[in-house]
Amino acid sequence: MTLRFYYSPRSCALASHIVLEHVGADYEAVKVDFTQKEQQSPEFLAINPKGRVPALVTDRGVLTETPAILLYLAQTYPDYSLAPVDDAFALAELQAVNSWFCSTVHVAQAHFSRGYRWADDEAAQQAMKVKAPQVMAECFDWIERELLRGPWMMGEGLTIADPYLFTVGSWLAGDGIDIARFPRVAAHRERMLELPAVRKIAQLHGL
Amino acid sequence: MTLRFYYSPRSCALASHIVLEHVGADYEAVKVDFTQKEQQSPEFLAINPKGRVPALVTDRGVLTETPAILLYLAQTYPDYSLAPVDDAFALAELQAVNSWFCSTVHVAQAHFSRGYRWADDEAAQQAMKVKAPQVMAECFDWIERELLRGPWMMGEGLTIADPYLFTVGSWLAGDGIDIARFPRVAAHRERMLELPAVRKIAQLHGL
Repeated sequence: MTLRFYYSPRSCALASHIVLEHVGADYEAVKVDFTQKEQQSPEFLAINPKGRVPALVTDRGVLTETPAILLYLAQTYPDYSLAPVDDAFALAELQAVNSWFCSTVHVAQAHFSRGYRWADDEAAQQAMKVKAPQVMAECFDWIERELLRGPWMMGEGLTIADPYLFTVGSWLAGDGIDIARFPRVAAHRERMLELPAVRKIAQLHGL
Repeated sequence: MTLRFYYSPRSCALASHIVLEHVGADYEAVKVDFTQKEQQSPEFLAINPKGRVPALVTDRGVLTETPAILLYLAQTYPDYSLAPVDDAFALAELQAVNSWFCSTVHVAQAHFSRGYRWADDEAAQQAMKVKAPQVMAECFDWIERELLRGPWMMGEGLTIADPYLFTVGSWLAGDGIDIARFPRVAAHRERMLELPAVRKIAQLHGL
């Protein structure tokens, strides 16, 4: 069965979208227009009741949450060696990075424009918006100094941590942060863009 | 080598702590006293530079982040069948739940007392504290209605999603929320407490 992949441009769905393309999966990409609030439409809520992207429809059901979809794709397309699925320690190191991307980096970014999730008061939402770029910069300082092993995120081989880094890194410009502040992260971005799948999907996402 | 496990009582480290005990791992638990800011001590930062728990010291290095440590333990102690590691779809469903626990439920709870991570303004932090119990209740409504398959989180078998649910559920009381509002979640909690490992570790965490 052809996989159906629901995404919104430049959202965290970008990471899974890159991997789908990179492994040559048989998939159809369906854009969910957030400006039209399509993620809250009955049609989309029937697919993902959380009203979020990404969502990947498979013949066994719907998968959600970026770290889970990425691991699924790595395991389903083993020829691309995108995760060390048979080495519990190495896999846990990789999953720790992707877990941190979703629980800390993505959450930091969400405070820039979605503070309403955590406070009703508009002044409080504004205070979060003001601080978000600082928190994002701290995250990227950490990636630059500690996490990015080079040339790829986990070292010598491309893994599912790389499209996720590429994705969260693409949010820096909107925070008013020049990625050039983090030279190793910037070099990683260029390296990613040398991959045909990344170039194609980045363009589709308007990057 | 004996594993060394760094935890703080009633933190998210509780989930991994339960699994370590349940699988009979050879481990030593080391308490990190947050009231003394021990997580910021040079000794602890040498182990986990993020200054957070849990941290699991293995003979190959240190693992962090709850979803990653849980998967590592499931894979390292396969006799306990705590994760369907050879079934990509089922594993992704499980990882989606644990990913959501860390990126959404834990994050919702963190706004109750750690709003300083996302806003400098004290009034904004207070606005987050006020809303946090509401967001937590929404998360647990969702668990009650949709996520908890029963009798265990993913259905018939105990998995690494169960100690994570037990852990985030243990935070409800501090939010002023009676777990009895969510009868299926409350029943899951009782079911967990029938397991000797859960009883022992819950007691150690002062629950």
